[in-house]
Amino acid sequence: MDWNEVALHAKQWMLEAGGLLRDSLETSLTIETKSNASDLVTNMDRHIEQFLIEKILERYPLHRILGEEGYGNEEGSLQGTLWLIDPIDGTMNFVHQKRNFVISIGIYHNGQGKIGLVYDPVHDEMYSAVQGQGAYCNDTEIPKLKAGIVEESVIGINATWLTRNRMLDYERMGELVRRSRGSRSYGCAALEMVYVATGRLDGYITPRLSPWDFGGGAVILSEVGGIVTNFNGVALSPIEKGPILAARPGVYEELLTYVK
Amino acid sequence: MDWNEVALHAKQWMLEAGGLLRDSLETSLTIETKSNASDLVTNMDRHIEQFLIEKILERYPLHRILGEEGYGNEEGSLQGTLWLIDPIDGTMNFVHQKRNFVISIGIYHNGQGKIGLVYDPVHDEMYSAVQGQGAYCNDTEIPKLKAGIVEESVIGINATWLTRNRMLDYERMGELVRRSRGSRSYGCAALEMVYVATGRLDGYITPRLSPWDFGGGAVILSEVGGIVTNFNGVALSPIEKGPILAARPGVYEELLTYVK
Repeated sequence: MDWNEVALHAKQWMLEAGGLLRDSLETSLTIETKSNASDLVTNMDRHIEQFLIEKILERYPLHRILGEEGYGNEEGSLQGTLWLIDPIDGTMNFVHQKRNFVISIGIYHNGQGKIGLVYDPVHDEMYSAVQGQGAYCNDTEIPKLKAGIVEESVIGINATWLTRNRMLDYERMGELVRRSRGSRSYGCAALEMVYVATGRLDGYITPRLSPWDFGGGAVILSEVGGIVTNFNGVALSPIEKGPILAARPGVYEELLTYVK
Repeated sequence: MDWNEVALHAKQWMLEAGGLLRDSLETSLTIETKSNASDLVTNMDRHIEQFLIEKILERYPLHRILGEEGYGNEEGSLQGTLWLIDPIDGTMNFVHQKRNFVISIGIYHNGQGKIGLVYDPVHDEMYSAVQGQGAYCNDTEIPKLKAGIVEESVIGINATWLTRNRMLDYERMGELVRRSRGSRSYGCAALEMVYVATGRLDGYITPRLSPWDFGGGAVILSEVGGIVTNFNGVALSPIEKGPILAARPGVYEELLTYVK
Protein backbone atom coordinates (compact mmCIF):
# COMPACT_ATOMS: atom_id res chain seq x y z
CA MET A 1 0.00 0.00 0.00
CA ASP A 2 1.35 3.45 -0.94
CA TRP A 3 0.43 5.39 2.22
CA ASN A 4 1.46 8.71 0.70
CA GLU A 5 -1.08 8.22 -2.03
CA VAL A 6 -3.77 7.26 0.49
CA ALA A 7 -2.95 10.38 2.53
CA LEU A 8 -3.16 12.56 -0.55
CA HIS A 9 -6.64 11.28 -1.41
CA ALA A 10 -7.84 11.54 2.19
CA LYS A 11 -6.61 15.13 2.46
CA GLN A 12 -8.41 16.04 -0.75
CA TRP A 13 -11.70 14.61 0.55
CA MET A 14 -11.25 16.41 3.89
CA LEU A 15 -10.63 19.74 2.16
CA GLU A 16 -13.86 19.21 0.19
CA ALA A 17 -15.73 18.23 3.36
CA GLY A 18 -14.29 21.26 5.13
CA GLY A 19 -15.70 23.49 2.40
CA LEU A 20 -19.13 21.96 2.99
CA LEU A 21 -18.76 22.66 6.72
CA ARG A 22 -17.71 26.26 6.13
CA ASP A 23 -20.70 26.78 3.84
CA SER A 24 -23.01 25.24 6.44
CA LEU A 25 -22.00 27.88 9.00
CA GLU A 26 -24.08 30.36 7.01
CA THR A 27 -27.21 28.22 7.09
CA SER A 28 -29.30 26.91 9.94
CA LEU A 29 -28.50 23.53 11.42
CA THR A 30 -30.69 20.70 12.59
CA ILE A 31 -29.47 19.92 16.10
CA GLU A 32 -30.40 16.84 18.08
CA THR A 33 -29.14 15.38 21.32
CA LYS A 34 -27.72 11.86 21.60
CA SER A 35 -26.99 10.14 24.91
CA ASN A 36 -27.69 13.24 27.00
CA ALA A 37 -28.60 16.93 26.69
CA SER A 38 -24.97 17.93 26.19
CA ASP A 39 -24.18 15.30 23.54
CA LEU A 40 -25.13 17.15 20.37
CA VAL A 41 -25.32 15.92 16.81
CA THR A 42 -26.24 17.91 13.73
CA ASN A 43 -27.34 17.05 10.22
CA MET A 44 -23.83 18.05 9.14
CA ASP A 45 -22.13 15.39 11.32
CA ARG A 46 -24.14 12.76 9.49
CA HIS A 47 -23.79 14.36 6.07
CA ILE A 48 -19.98 14.68 6.30
CA GLU A 49 -19.57 11.13 7.62
CA GLN A 50 -21.63 9.82 4.70
CA PHE A 51 -19.64 11.95 2.24
CA LEU A 52 -16.31 10.59 3.50
CA ILE A 53 -17.50 6.98 3.64
CA GLU A 54 -18.62 7.08 0.03
CA LYS A 55 -15.29 8.51 -1.11
CA ILE A 56 -13.28 5.95 0.88
CA LEU A 57 -15.26 2.88 -0.20
CA GLU A 58 -15.36 3.95 -3.82
CA ARG A 59 -11.55 4.00 -3.99
CA TYR A 60 -10.71 1.44 -1.30
CA PRO A 61 -13.60 -1.04 -1.25
CA LEU A 62 -11.75 -3.49 1.01
CA HIS A 63 -10.91 -0.98 3.73
CA ARG A 64 -12.93 -0.92 6.92
CA ILE A 65 -14.31 2.22 8.56
CA LEU A 66 -15.28 3.23 12.08
CA GLY A 67 -17.21 6.49 12.14
CA GLU A 68 -18.54 8.51 15.04
CA GLU A 69 -22.05 8.66 13.64
CA GLY A 70 -22.48 4.91 13.70
CA TYR A 71 -20.84 3.51 10.63
CA GLY A 72 -18.77 0.32 10.99
CA ASN A 73 -18.59 -2.66 13.23
CA GLU A 74 -17.55 -1.67 16.74
CA GLU A 75 -16.30 -5.17 17.46
CA GLY A 76 -13.99 -5.06 14.44
CA SER A 77 -10.62 -6.74 14.44
CA LEU A 78 -7.26 -5.06 13.96
CA GLN A 79 -6.60 -6.91 10.70
CA GLY A 80 -6.34 -5.00 7.43
CA THR A 81 -6.78 -1.29 6.92
CA LEU A 82 -9.10 0.61 9.25
CA TRP A 83 -10.19 4.25 8.88
CA LEU A 84 -11.26 6.05 12.05
CA ILE A 85 -13.30 9.07 11.08
CA ASP A 86 -14.84 11.86 13.07
CA PRO A 87 -16.76 14.10 10.69
CA ILE A 88 -16.96 16.90 13.29
CA ASP A 89 -14.85 16.61 16.42
CA GLY A 90 -16.11 19.34 18.73
CA THR A 91 -19.76 19.39 17.67
CA MET A 92 -20.61 21.60 20.66
CA ASN A 93 -18.10 24.19 19.40
CA PHE A 94 -19.44 23.80 15.86
CA VAL A 95 -22.94 24.65 17.12
CA HIS A 96 -22.08 27.31 19.74
CA GLN A 97 -18.94 28.87 18.29
CA LYS A 98 -18.82 28.13 14.57
CA ARG A 99 -15.10 27.51 15.11
CA ASN A 100 -12.73 25.33 17.14
CA PHE A 101 -13.95 22.09 15.52
CA VAL A 102 -12.10 19.74 13.14
CA ILE A 103 -12.49 16.78 10.83
CA SER A 104 -10.30 13.91 12.05
CA ILE A 105 -9.11 10.82 10.18
CA GLY A 106 -6.74 8.14 11.45
CA ILE A 107 -5.73 5.23 9.21
CA TYR A 108 -4.42 2.06 10.85
CA HIS A 109 -3.05 -1.09 9.24
CA ASN A 110 -2.98 -4.30 11.27
CA GLY A 111 -3.33 -2.12 14.37
CA GLN A 112 -0.47 0.26 13.50
CA GLY A 113 -1.06 3.97 12.95
CA LYS A 114 -0.10 4.81 9.35
CA ILE A 115 -1.74 8.18 8.68
CA GLY A 116 -3.07 10.96 10.90
CA LEU A 117 -5.06 13.92 9.52
CA VAL A 118 -6.78 16.69 11.46
CA TYR A 119 -8.33 19.53 9.47
CA ASP A 120 -9.57 22.84 10.93
CA PRO A 121 -11.76 24.18 8.11
CA VAL A 122 -12.39 27.63 9.63
CA HIS A 123 -8.69 28.45 9.82
CA ASP A 124 -7.79 26.23 6.83
CA GLU A 125 -5.15 24.33 8.79
CA MET A 126 -4.41 20.74 7.78
CA TYR A 127 -2.32 18.83 10.30
CA SER A 128 -0.95 15.66 8.77
CA ALA A 129 1.46 12.80 9.32
CA VAL A 130 2.43 9.64 7.51
CA GLN A 131 4.27 7.14 9.74
CA GLY A 132 8.03 7.70 9.64
CA GLN A 133 7.84 10.90 7.61
CA GLY A 134 7.31 13.59 10.25
CA ALA A 135 4.25 15.78 10.84
CA TYR A 136 3.10 18.93 9.10
CA CYS A 137 0.76 21.87 9.50
CA ASN A 138 -0.16 22.63 5.91
CA ASP A 139 3.28 22.67 4.21
CA THR A 140 5.33 23.50 7.31
CA GLU A 141 7.04 20.66 9.16
CA ILE A 142 6.23 20.56 12.88
CA PRO A 143 9.49 20.42 14.91
CA LYS A 144 10.20 17.44 17.14
CA LEU A 145 9.09 17.99 20.75
CA LYS A 146 11.71 18.67 23.39
CA ALA A 147 11.43 17.27 26.91
CA GLY A 148 9.71 19.48 29.51
CA ILE A 149 8.66 19.67 33.15
CA VAL A 150 5.24 20.27 34.71
CA GLU A 151 6.30 23.58 36.33
CA GLU A 152 6.80 25.08 32.87
CA SER A 153 3.80 23.40 31.28
CA VAL A 154 0.36 24.41 30.12
CA ILE A 155 -1.96 21.45 30.56
CA GLY A 156 -5.11 20.72 28.58
CA ILE A 157 -7.75 19.52 31.02
CA ASN A 158 -11.44 20.30 31.32
CA ALA A 159 -12.81 21.78 34.55
CA THR A 160 -15.19 18.80 34.81
CA TRP A 161 -12.27 16.61 35.91
CA LEU A 162 -11.58 18.97 38.79
CA THR A 163 -15.01 18.20 40.19
CA ARG A 164 -15.96 14.96 41.93
CA ASN A 165 -16.04 12.24 39.25
CA ARG A 166 -15.49 8.53 38.83
CA MET A 167 -12.72 8.71 36.23
CA LEU A 168 -9.98 10.76 37.90
CA ASP A 169 -8.87 11.73 41.41
CA TYR A 170 -10.03 15.35 41.32
CA GLU A 171 -7.86 16.37 44.26
CA ARG A 172 -4.72 15.11 42.51
CA MET A 173 -5.85 16.95 39.36
CA GLY A 174 -6.14 20.10 41.48
CA GLU A 175 -2.57 19.67 42.70
CA LEU A 176 -1.42 19.22 39.11
CA VAL A 177 -3.20 22.32 37.84
CA ARG A 178 -1.79 24.44 40.66
CA ARG A 179 1.73 23.11 40.04
CA SER A 180 1.61 23.79 36.28
CA ARG A 181 1.87 27.18 34.58
CA GLY A 182 -1.78 27.00 33.73
CA SER A 183 -4.55 24.97 32.18
CA ARG A 184 -6.65 25.33 29.08
CA SER A 185 -9.73 23.61 27.67
CA TYR A 186 -10.89 23.80 24.05
CA GLY A 187 -13.59 21.14 23.88
CA CYS A 188 -12.18 19.37 20.83
CA ALA A 189 -10.00 16.33 21.54
CA ALA A 190 -8.35 16.04 18.12
CA LEU A 191 -7.45 19.73 18.22
CA GLU A 192 -6.10 19.38 21.75
CA MET A 193 -3.89 16.46 20.68
CA VAL A 194 -2.62 18.54 17.76
CA TYR A 195 -1.97 21.36 20.26
CA VAL A 196 0.29 18.95 22.18
CA ALA A 197 2.02 17.97 18.92
CA THR A 198 2.73 21.63 18.10
CA GLY A 199 3.85 22.42 21.67
CA ARG A 200 0.93 24.81 22.31
CA LEU A 201 -0.05 22.48 25.13
CA ASP A 202 2.53 20.41 26.99
CA GLY A 203 0.07 17.73 28.03
CA TYR A 204 -3.56 16.72 27.61
CA ILE A 205 -5.63 14.56 29.96
CA THR A 206 -9.09 13.26 29.21
CA PRO A 207 -10.80 10.20 30.67
CA ARG A 208 -12.97 9.01 27.80
CA LEU A 209 -12.34 9.13 24.10
CA SER A 210 -13.37 6.93 21.23
CA PRO A 211 -11.02 5.71 18.48
CA TRP A 212 -12.37 8.30 16.02
CA ASP A 213 -11.52 11.07 18.52
CA PHE A 214 -7.86 10.12 19.03
CA GLY A 215 -7.07 8.11 15.87
CA GLY A 216 -5.73 10.98 13.77
CA GLY A 217 -4.15 13.01 16.55
CA ALA A 218 -2.26 10.03 17.97
CA VAL A 219 -0.38 9.39 14.71
CA ILE A 220 0.53 13.09 14.36
CA LEU A 221 1.69 13.27 17.97
CA SER A 222 3.83 10.13 17.71
CA GLU A 223 5.58 11.50 14.63
CA VAL A 224 6.95 14.49 16.58
CA GLY A 225 8.08 12.41 19.56
CA GLY A 226 5.01 12.96 21.73
CA ILE A 227 3.74 10.11 23.86
CA VAL A 228 0.12 8.98 23.98
CA THR A 229 -1.23 6.11 26.08
CA ASN A 230 -4.09 5.25 28.40
CA PHE A 231 -3.86 6.08 32.14
CA ASN A 232 -1.82 2.92 32.79
CA GLY A 233 0.85 3.86 30.29
CA VAL A 234 -0.38 1.26 27.78
CA ALA A 235 -0.48 2.06 24.05
CA LEU A 236 -3.93 2.81 22.66
CA SER A 237 -5.87 0.30 20.62
CA PRO A 238 -7.59 1.78 17.56
CA ILE A 239 -10.71 -0.25 18.29
CA GLU A 240 -11.18 0.55 22.00
CA LYS A 241 -12.61 3.50 23.86
CA GLY A 242 -10.75 4.74 26.88
CA PRO A 243 -8.85 7.40 28.77
CA ILE A 244 -6.07 9.36 27.09
CA LEU A 245 -2.86 10.86 28.37
CA ALA A 246 -0.88 12.74 25.72
CA ALA A 247 2.21 14.82 26.39
CA ARG A 248 5.71 15.78 25.43
CA PRO A 249 8.51 13.63 26.92
CA GLY A 250 9.32 14.40 30.54
CA VAL A 251 5.92 15.93 31.15
CA TYR A 252 4.35 12.61 30.11
CA GLU A 253 6.17 10.64 32.80
CA GLU A 254 5.16 13.17 35.47
CA LEU A 255 1.53 13.27 34.36
CA LEU A 256 1.35 9.49 34.40
CA THR A 257 1.97 9.54 38.16
CA TYR A 258 -1.10 11.81 38.56
CA VAL A 259 -3.54 9.76 36.50
CA LYS A 260 -2.39 6.21 37.23
CA MET B 1 -14.82 64.56 21.12
CA ASP B 2 -15.50 62.61 17.91
CA TRP B 3 -15.30 59.06 19.25
CA ASN B 4 -15.53 57.54 15.78
CA GLU B 5 -12.39 59.38 14.80
CA VAL B 6 -10.61 58.27 17.97
CA ALA B 7 -11.65 54.68 17.28
CA LEU B 8 -10.37 54.91 13.72
CA HIS B 9 -6.94 56.08 14.86
CA ALA B 10 -6.75 53.50 17.64
CA LYS B 11 -7.64 50.69 15.24
CA GLN B 12 -4.95 51.81 12.82
CA TRP B 13 -2.31 51.77 15.58
CA MET B 14 -3.48 48.33 16.75
CA LEU B 15 -3.26 46.92 13.23
CA GLU B 16 0.32 48.23 13.03
CA ALA B 17 1.14 46.82 16.45
CA GLY B 18 -0.43 43.51 15.42
CA GLY B 19 1.90 43.38 12.44
CA LEU B 20 4.87 43.83 14.78
CA LEU B 21 3.56 40.99 16.95
CA ARG B 22 3.08 38.69 13.95
CA ASP B 23 6.63 39.42 12.80
CA SER B 24 7.96 38.75 16.29
CA LEU B 25 6.54 35.21 16.21
CA GLU B 26 9.32 34.32 13.76
CA THR B 27 12.09 35.62 16.04
CA SER B 28 13.17 34.61 19.52
CA LEU B 29 11.65 36.37 22.52
CA THR B 30 13.14 37.61 25.75
CA ILE B 31 10.94 36.13 28.45
CA GLU B 32 10.98 37.18 32.09
CA THR B 33 8.73 36.38 35.00
CA LYS B 34 6.96 39.08 37.02
CA SER B 35 5.17 38.41 40.32
CA ASN B 36 5.58 34.62 40.08
CA ALA B 37 6.91 31.89 37.79
CA SER B 38 3.68 31.80 35.80
CA ASP B 39 3.40 35.57 35.30
CA LEU B 40 5.34 36.03 32.09
CA VAL B 41 6.37 39.21 30.34
CA THR B 42 8.29 39.51 27.09
CA ASN B 43 10.24 42.25 25.39
CA MET B 44 7.27 42.52 23.00
CA ASP B 45 4.79 43.37 25.80
CA ARG B 46 6.95 46.36 26.66
CA HIS B 47 7.71 47.30 23.07
CA ILE B 48 4.05 47.28 22.00
CA GLU B 49 2.92 49.23 25.07
CA GLN B 50 5.56 51.89 24.34
CA PHE B 51 4.56 51.97 20.66
CA LEU B 52 0.89 52.56 21.53
CA ILE B 53 1.62 55.14 24.23
CA GLU B 54 3.70 57.23 21.83
CA LYS B 55 0.96 57.17 19.19
CA ILE B 56 -1.74 58.09 21.69
CA LEU B 57 0.12 60.94 23.38
CA GLU B 58 1.32 62.37 20.09
CA ARG B 59 -2.27 62.84 18.91
CA TYR B 60 -4.07 63.20 22.24
CA PRO B 61 -1.56 64.77 24.65
CA LEU B 62 -4.21 65.44 27.32
CA HIS B 63 -5.50 61.88 27.48
CA ARG B 64 -4.42 59.64 30.32
CA ILE B 65 -3.26 56.05 29.91
CA LEU B 66 -3.20 52.96 32.12
CA GLY B 67 -1.05 50.23 30.63
CA GLU B 68 -0.34 46.69 31.83
CA GLU B 69 3.41 47.12 31.69
CA GLY B 70 3.42 49.92 34.22
CA TYR B 71 2.54 53.11 32.40
CA GLY B 72 0.13 55.53 34.11
CA ASN B 73 -0.93 56.45 37.58
CA GLU B 74 -2.82 53.63 39.24
CA GLU B 75 -4.56 56.02 41.61
CA GLY B 76 -5.92 58.02 38.69
CA SER B 77 -9.32 59.64 38.82
CA LEU B 78 -12.23 58.99 36.47
CA GLN B 79 -12.15 62.53 35.08
CA GLY B 80 -11.29 63.14 31.44
CA THR B 81 -10.35 60.53 28.85
CA LEU B 82 -8.59 57.39 30.00
CA TRP B 83 -7.07 54.71 27.75
CA LEU B 84 -6.75 51.20 29.21
CA ILE B 85 -4.24 49.28 27.15
CA ASP B 86 -3.02 45.72 27.28
CA PRO B 87 -0.29 45.29 24.67
CA ILE B 88 -0.55 41.48 24.85
CA ASP B 89 -3.45 39.96 26.72
CA GLY B 90 -2.61 36.27 27.06
CA THR B 91 1.19 36.54 27.24
CA MET B 92 1.40 32.88 28.26
CA ASN B 93 -0.40 31.92 25.03
CA PHE B 94 1.81 34.30 23.06
CA VAL B 95 4.90 32.50 24.41
CA HIS B 96 3.64 28.90 24.40
CA GLN B 97 1.19 28.92 21.51
CA LYS B 98 2.00 31.83 19.23
CA ARG B 99 -1.77 32.32 18.98
CA ASN B 100 -4.80 32.99 21.19
CA PHE B 101 -3.53 36.38 22.38
CA VAL B 102 -4.88 39.87 21.61
CA ILE B 103 -4.16 43.55 21.91
CA SER B 104 -6.88 45.23 24.00
CA ILE B 105 -7.81 48.90 24.25
CA GLY B 106 -10.69 50.42 26.20
CA ILE B 107 -11.34 54.16 26.13
CA TYR B 108 -13.36 55.71 28.96
CA HIS B 109 -14.55 59.29 29.39
CA ASN B 110 -15.50 60.51 32.87
CA GLY B 111 -15.80 56.84 33.85
CA GLN B 112 -18.05 55.86 30.93
CA GLY B 113 -16.97 53.28 28.35
CA LYS B 114 -16.82 54.96 24.96
CA ILE B 115 -14.72 52.63 22.80
CA GLY B 116 -13.76 48.95 23.03
CA LEU B 117 -11.20 47.35 20.72
CA VAL B 118 -9.80 43.81 20.85
CA TYR B 119 -7.49 42.71 18.04
CA ASP B 120 -6.37 39.13 17.37
CA PRO B 121 -3.37 39.63 15.07
CA VAL B 122 -2.84 35.96 14.19
CA HIS B 123 -6.35 35.58 12.78
CA ASP B 124 -6.60 39.25 11.78
CA GLU B 125 -9.87 39.75 13.66
CA MET B 126 -10.64 43.23 14.97
CA TYR B 127 -13.54 43.33 17.44
CA SER B 128 -14.74 46.88 17.94
CA ALA B 129 -17.48 48.99 19.47
CA VAL B 130 -18.24 52.67 19.87
CA GLN B 131 -20.85 53.37 22.56
CA GLY B 132 -24.35 53.37 21.12
CA GLN B 133 -23.31 52.17 17.67
CA GLY B 134 -23.24 48.38 18.06
CA ALA B 135 -20.27 46.02 17.94
CA TYR B 136 -18.39 44.57 15.01
CA CYS B 137 -15.96 41.80 14.11
CA ASN B 138 -14.01 43.39 11.26
CA ASP B 139 -16.82 44.76 9.07
CA THR B 140 -19.54 42.39 10.24
CA GLU B 141 -21.97 43.58 12.90
CA ILE B 142 -22.23 41.23 15.89
CA PRO B 143 -25.91 40.39 16.55
CA LYS B 144 -27.52 41.35 19.86
CA LEU B 145 -27.39 38.55 22.43
CA LYS B 146 -30.56 36.62 23.22
CA ALA B 147 -31.39 35.47 26.73
CA GLY B 148 -30.25 31.98 27.72
CA ILE B 149 -30.23 29.42 30.52
CA VAL B 150 -27.32 27.64 32.22
CA GLU B 151 -28.44 24.18 31.04
CA GLU B 152 -27.84 25.24 27.43
CA SER B 153 -24.69 27.24 28.16
CA VAL B 154 -20.98 26.85 27.60
CA ILE B 155 -19.18 28.63 30.44
CA GLY B 156 -15.69 30.12 30.32
CA ILE B 157 -13.95 29.25 33.58
CA ASN B 158 -10.42 28.09 34.32
CA ALA B 159 -9.86 24.78 36.11
CA THR B 160 -7.95 26.68 38.83
CA TRP B 161 -11.26 27.97 40.20
CA LEU B 162 -12.49 24.42 40.62
CA THR B 163 -9.66 23.79 43.08
CA ARG B 164 -9.57 25.11 46.66
CA ASN B 165 -9.02 28.88 46.42
CA ARG B 166 -9.80 32.06 48.30
CA MET B 167 -11.73 33.80 45.54
CA LEU B 168 -14.59 31.46 44.70
CA ASP B 169 -16.52 28.62 46.33
CA TYR B 170 -15.03 25.78 44.30
CA GLU B 171 -17.80 23.35 45.21
CA ARG B 172 -20.44 25.74 43.88
CA MET B 173 -18.33 26.18 40.73
CA GLY B 174 -18.30 22.39 40.38
CA GLU B 175 -22.11 22.30 40.56
CA LEU B 176 -22.26 25.02 37.91
CA VAL B 177 -19.89 23.26 35.52
CA ARG B 178 -21.81 19.99 35.85
CA ARG B 179 -25.13 21.76 35.28
CA SER B 180 -23.93 23.57 32.16
CA ARG B 181 -23.37 22.05 28.71
CA GLY B 182 -19.66 22.37 29.20
CA SER B 183 -16.80 24.64 30.12
CA ARG B 184 -13.88 26.10 28.20
CA SER B 185 -10.74 28.01 29.11
CA TYR B 186 -8.61 30.01 26.68
CA GLY B 187 -6.24 31.89 28.98
CA CYS B 188 -6.95 35.33 27.47
CA ALA B 189 -9.53 37.45 29.30
CA ALA B 190 -10.20 39.98 26.54
CA LEU B 191 -10.71 37.15 24.04
CA GLU B 192 -13.00 35.34 26.46
CA MET B 193 -15.12 38.49 26.91
CA VAL B 194 -15.33 38.83 23.13
CA TYR B 195 -16.34 35.17 23.00
CA VAL B 196 -19.27 36.04 25.28
CA ALA B 197 -20.14 39.02 23.05
CA THR B 198 -20.22 36.78 19.96
CA GLY B 199 -22.19 34.05 21.75
CA ARG B 200 -19.34 31.51 21.54
CA LEU B 201 -19.41 31.42 25.31
CA ASP B 202 -22.59 32.11 27.26
CA GLY B 203 -20.80 33.30 30.36
CA TYR B 204 -17.31 33.96 31.72
CA ILE B 205 -16.19 33.94 35.33
CA THR B 206 -12.80 35.08 36.57
CA PRO B 207 -11.87 36.36 40.03
CA ARG B 208 -9.14 38.87 39.29
CA LEU B 209 -8.71 41.15 36.35
CA SER B 210 -7.16 44.55 35.92
CA PRO B 211 -8.76 47.45 34.03
CA TRP B 212 -6.54 46.87 30.98
CA ASP B 213 -7.77 43.25 30.83
CA PHE B 214 -11.49 44.02 30.80
CA GLY B 215 -11.60 47.62 29.54
CA GLY B 216 -12.00 46.87 25.83
CA GLY B 217 -14.07 43.71 26.15
CA ALA B 218 -16.58 45.32 28.53
CA VAL B 219 -17.55 48.03 26.03
CA ILE B 220 -17.95 45.48 23.21
CA LEU B 221 -20.02 43.20 25.40
CA SER B 222 -22.32 45.99 26.61
CA GLU B 223 -23.00 47.05 23.01
CA VAL B 224 -24.56 43.65 22.19
CA GLY B 225 -26.67 43.50 25.35
CA GLY B 226 -24.28 41.41 27.43
CA ILE B 227 -23.93 42.14 31.12
CA VAL B 228 -20.62 42.58 32.91
CA THR B 229 -20.18 43.33 36.62
CA ASN B 230 -18.18 42.25 39.64
CA PHE B 231 -19.34 39.29 41.76
CA ASN B 232 -21.79 41.53 43.66
CA GLY B 233 -23.56 42.65 40.52
CA VAL B 234 -21.95 46.10 40.65
CA ALA B 235 -20.75 47.81 37.48
CA LEU B 236 -16.99 47.76 36.93
CA SER B 237 -14.83 50.80 37.58
CA PRO B 238 -12.19 51.40 34.89
CA ILE B 239 -9.61 52.20 37.56
CA GLU B 240 -10.09 49.21 39.88
CA LYS B 241 -8.94 45.61 39.76
CA GLY B 242 -11.43 42.95 40.67
CA PRO B 243 -13.50 39.90 39.86
CA ILE B 244 -15.50 39.72 36.64
CA LEU B 245 -18.78 38.08 35.74
CA ALA B 246 -19.76 38.48 32.09
CA ALA B 247 -22.70 36.75 30.43
CA ARG B 248 -25.69 36.97 28.17
CA PRO B 249 -28.97 37.99 29.82
CA GLY B 250 -30.67 35.21 31.78
CA VAL B 251 -27.43 33.29 32.17
CA TYR B 252 -25.97 36.34 33.93
CA GLU B 253 -28.65 36.35 36.63
CA GLU B 254 -28.17 32.63 37.25
CA LEU B 255 -24.37 32.89 37.39
CA LEU B 256 -24.61 35.76 39.85
CA THR B 257 -26.22 33.42 42.38
CA TYR B 258 -23.18 31.11 42.09
CA VAL B 259 -20.46 33.74 42.54
CA LYS B 260 -22.11 36.15 44.98
